[in-house]
Amino acid sequence: MVIVMAPEATQADINTVVALVETAGGDAFVSRGVSRTIVGLVGDIEQLGTLNLRGLDGVSDVLRVSVPYKLVSRENHPNRSIITVGGVPIGPGTMTLIAGPCAVETAEQTLQAAQMAQAAGATLLRGGAFKPRTSPYAFQGLGEAGLKILAAVREETGLPVITEVVDAHDVDLVASYADMLQIGTRNMQNFALLQAVGGVGKPVMLKRGMNATIEEWLMAAEYIAQRGNLDIVLCERGIRTFETATRNTLDISAVPVAQRMSHLPVIVDPSHSGGLRELVLPLTRAAIAVGADGLIIDVHPHPESALCDGPQALVDGDVRELAKAVRDLPPLVGRALTQPTGPVSVPAPARPEAIA
Amino acid sequence: MVIVMAPEATQADINTVVALVETAGGDAFVSRGVSRTIVGLVGDIEQLGTLNLRGLDGVSDVLRVSVPYKLVSRENHPNRSIITVGGVPIGPGTMTLIAGPCAVETAEQTLQAAQMAQAAGATLLRGGAFKPRTSPYAFQGLGEAGLKILAAVREETGLPVITEVVDAHDVDLVASYADMLQIGTRNMQNFALLQAVGGVGKPVMLKRGMNATIEEWLMAAEYIAQRGNLDIVLCERGIRTFETATRNTLDISAVPVAQRMSHLPVIVDPSHSGGLRELVLPLTRAAIAVGADGLIIDVHPHPESALCDGPQALVDGDVRELAKAVRDLPPLVGRALTQPTGPVSVPAPARPEAIA
Amino acid sequence: MVIVMAPEATQADINTVVALVETAGGDAFVSRGVSRTIVGLVGDIEQLGTLNLRGLDGVSDVLRVSVPYKLVSRENHPNRSIITVGGVPIGPGTMTLIAGPCAVETAEQTLQAAQMAQAAGATLLRGGAFKPRTSPYAFQGLGEAGLKILAAVREETGLPVITEVVDAHDVDLVASYADMLQIGTRNMQNFALLQAVGGVGKPVMLKRGMNATIEEWLMAAEYIAQRGNLDIVLCERGIRTFETATRNTLDISAVPVAQRMSHLPVIVDPSHSGGLRELVLPLTRAAIAVGADGLIIDVHPHPESALCDGPQALVDGDVRELAKAVRDLPPLVGRALTQPTGPVSVPAPARPEAIA
Amino acid sequence: MVIVMAPEATQADINTVVALVETAGGDAFVSRGVSRTIVGLVGDIEQLGTLNLRGLDGVSDVLRVSVPYKLVSRENHPNRSIITVGGVPIGPGTMTLIAGPCAVETAEQTLQAAQMAQAAGATLLRGGAFKPRTSPYAFQGLGEAGLKILAAVREETGLPVITEVVDAHDVDLVASYADMLQIGTRNMQNFALLQAVGGVGKPVMLKRGMNATIEEWLMAAEYIAQRGNLDIVLCERGIRTFETATRNTLDISAVPVAQRMSHLPVIVDPSHSGGLRELVLPLTRAAIAVGADGLIIDVHPHPESALCDGPQALVDGDVRELAKAVRDLPPLVGRALTQPTGPVSVPAPARPEAIA
Repeated sequence: MVIVMAPEATQADINTVVALVETAGGDAFVSRGVSRTIVGLVGDIEQLGTLNLRGLDGVSDVLRVSVPYKLVSRENHPNRSIITVGGVPIGPGTMTLIAGPCAVETAEQTLQAAQMAQAAGATLLRGGAFKPRTSPYAFQGLGEAGLKILAAVREETGLPVITEVVDAHDVDLVASYADMLQIGTRNMQNFALLQAVGGVGKPVMLKRGMNATIEEWLMAAEYIAQRGNLDIVLCERGIRTFETATRNTLDISAVPVAQRMSHLPVIVDPSHSGGLRELVLPLTRAAIAVGADGLIIDVHPHPESALCDGPQALVDGDVRELAKAVRDLPPLVGRALTQPTGPVSVPAPARPEAIA
Repeated sequence: MVIVMAPEATQADINTVVALVETAGGDAFVSRGVSRTIVGLVGDIEQLGTLNLRGLDGVSDVLRVSVPYKLVSRENHPNRSIITVGGVPIGPGTMTLIAGPCAVETAEQTLQAAQMAQAAGATLLRGGAFKPRTSPYAFQGLGEAGLKILAAVREETGLPVITEVVDAHDVDLVASYADMLQIGTRNMQNFALLQAVGGVGKPVMLKRGMNATIEEWLMAAEYIAQRGNLDIVLCERGIRTFETATRNTLDISAVPVAQRMSHLPVIVDPSHSGGLRELVLPLTRAAIAVGADGLIIDVHPHPESALCDGPQALVDGDVRELAKAVRDLPPLVGRALTQPTGPVSVPAPARPEAIA
Repeated sequence: MVIVMAPEATQADINTVVALVETAGGDAFVSRGVSRTIVGLVGDIEQLGTLNLRGLDGVSDVLRVSVPYKLVSRENHPNRSIITVGGVPIGPGTMTLIAGPCAVETAEQTLQAAQMAQAAGATLLRGGAFKPRTSPYAFQGLGEAGLKILAAVREETGLPVITEVVDAHDVDLVASYADMLQIGTRNMQNFALLQAVGGVGKPVMLKRGMNATIEEWLMAAEYIAQRGNLDIVLCERGIRTFETATRNTLDISAVPVAQRMSHLPVIVDPSHSGGLRELVLPLTRAAIAVGADGLIIDVHPHPESALCDGPQALVDGDVRELAKAVRDLPPLVGRALTQPTGPVSVPAPARPEAIA
Repeated sequence: MVIVMAPEATQADINTVVALVETAGGDAFVSRGVSRTIVGLVGDIEQLGTLNLRGLDGVSDVLRVSVPYKLVSRENHPNRSIITVGGVPIGPGTMTLIAGPCAVETAEQTLQAAQMAQAAGATLLRGGAFKPRTSPYAFQGLGEAGLKILAAVREETGLPVITEVVDAHDVDLVASYADMLQIGTRNMQNFALLQAVGGVGKPVMLKRGMNATIEEWLMAAEYIAQRGNLDIVLCERGIRTFETATRNTLDISAVPVAQRMSHLPVIVDPSHSGGLRELVLPLTRAAIAVGADGLIIDVHPHPESALCDGPQALVDGDVRELAKAVRDLPPLVGRALTQPTGPVSVPAPARPEAIA
C-alpha cells in the first residue's frame, strides 16, 4: 500500500501516519520529494486496510496496488500522464521529437546539430556532457564545459535541454543546467542515482536497461517516483539479444506493453537501437506508428569525425525526410507533432536552497 | 561462384559445365529446379574465374558473390524481387495482407475467417492444416481434410491459399492444394524440408527461426533457392529473448536489414510476434511503417474456442481498424495495399507427374 | 492422462480402451511403438478418472501427470533410467564417454579417430554421415557411404556407433547401420523426424535445441516416447546467448535441472558448446563434476584438414589428459567410467520387415 | 599505450611524460591510484612509439597492448595474479571458499552463518550491508549497522570480510570496515563507482553484469585498474538468457575464457547463478572442476525467514557435503583448498587521511 501525502501535509501529519501504521504491526517508509511526500507501507495488507488512513490529516490518497511498481502503475491511474519539459509536453495526443548530438564536442558542433534538430521538427535538444563509455580510454565527455555549451545553445535556439547524468554526485550540477535529466541504459539499476534524480525536482528520462525486462524498468522508475518525482519519461532503446546485425534489438512491442502497464509516457531511441544511420528513418516511422509518445534521435553535422557514435547519427541530407516522417505519420495514429513553445524562460534552479 | 543455367539448357550443356569445372580442380553441385538448374562451384575461385563459363551454351549467368547466401543476396541482384502468389504480388510498391485462421478447424470457421480477412483487405488466405506443436498432446491439425477445406474456401472467396508443410514427405500433397507453402519457425533449419519445397515449383514463405540470425535465415532461403526455386518470401515473426511480457520479441529492424541484404520480399507476422490480441494492431502499423512488403495476421470468428493460439487472433470488432491501418498507412511509405485479382483459376497441380 | 498398454495387448484391447474413453466424452490418441502401445487421453480429467481403465485387459499402467511431458517425467518414474546402447549403459552410477570424429570423411580418418576415442576411455563411437549444415555449400556428409565406414570401424574396434539422422525418410536406413540415432540441435522440433525415430526401435540421443527451454526439450522427447520409444538420452550442447566469446553457452545447470524433471539420462557435448579445443577439457571436467551421465566429444587425427568443426576437435596430444579426467573425476561424484563390453554383436536390423 | 609509473615517481616525472606525449601530438590521461600512477596514451601509436618513454625518470613500464583492456590483459602479464584479502590468497594453485549470508540481518544470524562458512572450509566471510534490490519496497540492508556486525563477526571468527558497495559516496565508509569491496552485477558499468573503488586501496571483487560480454567485464575491471588498483577478482554469477528454469544461466565457460584473456583470478557464485538450493552443490563441483580460483556461496541458519534470497542459501545439513566437495575436488585440478591464516589483524583504514 502507498500513501500519497498532500503538498501541504506537515511533519506532524506524517508522524501520525507512521505511528498508526507501526501500531498496527506494519512498517512505513517515508520518502520526501520536492513536491510531495510518499509513505510506503509493508505489512499485513488486511490489517492495514482496516485503518482509516484516508481520513487522516494531510493524506491525499491511499493506493492499494497489486503490482510491485505501485506509483507508476496504470492500475490506479488510468489516464496516461503528460510530462512537461521546459514547456514542451510529452505524452498522449502529441509526438515529441528530441534531437541533437550524441556528445557535446564543441559549441559550433552543438549549435549546428541543434539547428538540424529544429529543421527536422524537434522541440527539445539532446546532448551528452557526461558520457558513460565501455572503455576507460574512450572520450568521456566535456563535463561542466559541455553543460555550459548546452545552456548557451538553448539560449540561442529556444530548445530546452535534456542531458545525461552518470553519477549521483553530479545530479545537482547537471540539474542546474538541464531541463530534463537522462538516466542511461547502463545506470537503469544504479539505485543511488535513481534516488538522487528522484529528489531533484526536474523531469527524468529513464532509458531501459539493455537487459531489463519491462517490469524491471518500471521498478527502476518506481525508485525515482518513490522520492516524490513522478515526472518520468520511459525510453526504449533496444535490448541485447543474440542478433549481431544490429547494435541492439529495438523491442518495438515494449512501447504498447509499457503504456498499458504504466501511465508514464514512452518514447523510442531509434539511433542507439539500430546503431546504423540507414536504419534510423525506418525505425523512426515504426516507432511513430506503434504509438510512441516521442523520439530521441542523434544528429551530427560531421558524423565522420564525431567522438561518439558517429555511424548512427543522421546528417543534413536526412533532415528533410525525418521532418516529413514526424509531420505526416502522427496524424494517422491520432497524434500531432509537438510544436515549439514561445520563448523559453531561464529554467528555475533545481533546488533553490542548494544553489542559493 | 554460382552458375545459373538458362531454362532451355540441355543435360549436355550441364555436363559440359561440370566437366570443365572438374578439370580445373573444382567441385560442381548441380541443383535441378522446376524452372531452372543451378550449378554451385566450390574450389579455387581465382582458377575457376579464368574459365570462360559465361560463354558456354546454356549458361545464363555466372555470379561471383562474397556472401555465403549467393542466390538470394542483393549483391548481384540490386532490384528487389516481386513474388506472385495465385496472381497476387508481394514485393516493393505494394503492401499485401495475408489473413486467416491459425488452424483450420471446420469449414464454417474457415469460411468465416476468410470473410473477415477479405473485409480487412486481405488478398491471400492463411490457414494451417498441419500444425507443428510443442506438445504431442496438442491439436496437430486436420491434415488433408484441412487442405480440402482451404481449397473449398478459395473457390468460394477467390482468395489464394498459403498453408504450412511440416514434413518433406507431405510436400507434394500440400503443394497440390496450396498456392504458397509455408515453412514454420521450428523448421527453418530442417534442410530436408527446405530442399523438398525448393523442388516443388510453388512459392514459399520462409519464417525466421526464433533463434536464427538474419544471416542464417538467408542461408536457409539459399537451400530453397539452390534447388531452383527463387519464389521465396521471408517472414519475420519474432525472436526469442529474455523478455517474457510478449510471446516473442518482434525484431522490427530485421525488415530493413533483410531487405538490404537480400532481394527477396520481407513480411511480418504481428500475431505470433506479440502473442496478444491487443498488440496486433500496433505491431501491424509498425510493420507497415518500417517498410514491410506484407503482413500475415491471425483472425478467428470465435477465438475463445480456437484450437490453436486463440489469444492472439483478431476478432470481428478489430476488422474495421485493421482495414483502416492497411489502407491509410502504406501510401505514407510509398506503397499501396495490394488489390484483389480477378477470379482465381484452379491452381495447376504442383507436379503433374507425381499425382497423375 | 496416459495409458501404457502391455506388450501383449491386442488390437481388441486397445479398441475397448478407446471406445470407453469416447463414451465418456474424451478423445483417445493411439500411438503404436515397436515394443508398446500408448494411448493418450484428452478430455475432462475428473470424468476420465472415474473409468476403471487400469482394470481393463491389456492395460499395463495409467498415468496421471501434472506436467505436459508425461512419459519422460520423473513424476511417476522416480528412479532414473539406464539406457543401453549396443550393450553399453548410459545412466546413473556410470559416466559413459562417447567420442569420434564430427564427420566421417574417410575410412582411415574414422578408424584413427575411433582408436583415439578408445585410448581416451570411450565405449561408444560418434561420427556423422549426414551433416546438417547452415550453408548449402558446406560439406553435407558422405551419406550411406559414411554409414558403411562406421559399421566397418565398429567391426574393427568393437565400439557401438551413434550417428545423426536428419530426414525422416532416412531413419530406416540409418537405423539399419547405427546402434543409436542422434537428433541434432536444429531438428529438436522437427516433429516428423521425432515421430519417425520414435517408431524405429533403436535408442535415440536428443540434442537440446540451441534456443529451447528445458521444458521444450522434454516435450520433444515426449514426441519420441509417445511412439513407444523410451530409450532416449538427452544431450546438452550449449544454448544461444548474447555472448560471442564461445560458439554457444554451455548451460551446465541444465544437467541437474533436467535430471530432476525427467528420468532420462543427460549427457553433455563440451565440443560443440565451446567450439574451441582449449575449452573442451575444462568443460569436460565441469560436466562430470556437475553429475552428467556421459560425454560426447569430437576427436580428429588431423583437425587442421577436417571438413567440419576442426577447431573444436581434440587431437592426439589431448587424449592422455582426457583419459585422466574421465578416470579420476567420476568416483568423486559416485560414478565409475563405463567399461567396454565384450565383443559387439552385429546389431539386429531396426525393422526387419522394412529392409527385407 | 599505457605507462605505469614507479611508486617513487614524482609529480615532475609525470609532468615530463605528459609534456613529451603532447609535444608528439598525443593525449595523456593521468590516473593517480593509491599505490601507483598510470598514464594512458591516445594518439598515433607509431609516433608515440618512437619516444623513449621507457627511459624517462619514474617510468616503470610501457605497455603496448592490442586489446582494449590493457592493464588487466594477460598479453603483457602472462603469469596469472594472486590477490590477497586479509592475508588469504585468491588465485592459481589454491581454491578459496568465500561464504556467508546474502544479507546481514542480525548479529546472531551473521555469526551463525559465519560459523557454518568456517565449518564448510571458508576462509573469507561474505555478507551484504548495502543491498541493491530491484524493488524499492524490498529490504535494502542494514547499512553501517550491518558493517559493524560484520566487523564484530570478523573479530570473533578471524574471517576477513567482503561486502558490497552500491554508491560511490559510501566507498570510504565501506572500505573502513571491509577487507574486500564487492561490485554487484547491476553496477558493473557504474563507472563512477568503479573509479571510486579504484582509488581506495582495498581489493575489489567485480561481479559480471548479467548481460555483459566477457570483454565488457574486463573493460569494467580496466576502469578500476586505471585508477591504480589492480587487486581485482572477477566473479562469474550467471547471465540472463531465455531459459527460465534457473534464475540466471551460469556461464561456466566464462571461467577458462576470462582466465586466458586476463591475469586476474576468476571465481564463481553458484548461489546467484542457479537461484535454487538444490543446484548449489552441483554447480559448486562444476566450478571447481572447470578451474575456478574460488567460490562465493550463500549460507543461512534459517533461510525460510531470510530477508533476501533465502531459496538459494545452503543450510546446516548441506555444510558437510560442501566441505567434502571443496576438500576433495581441487587436488584433481592441481589446486588445494585455501587454508585459514593466523589471527587476523585489524585492517588498516583504507584512507587514513579520510577518516582521521
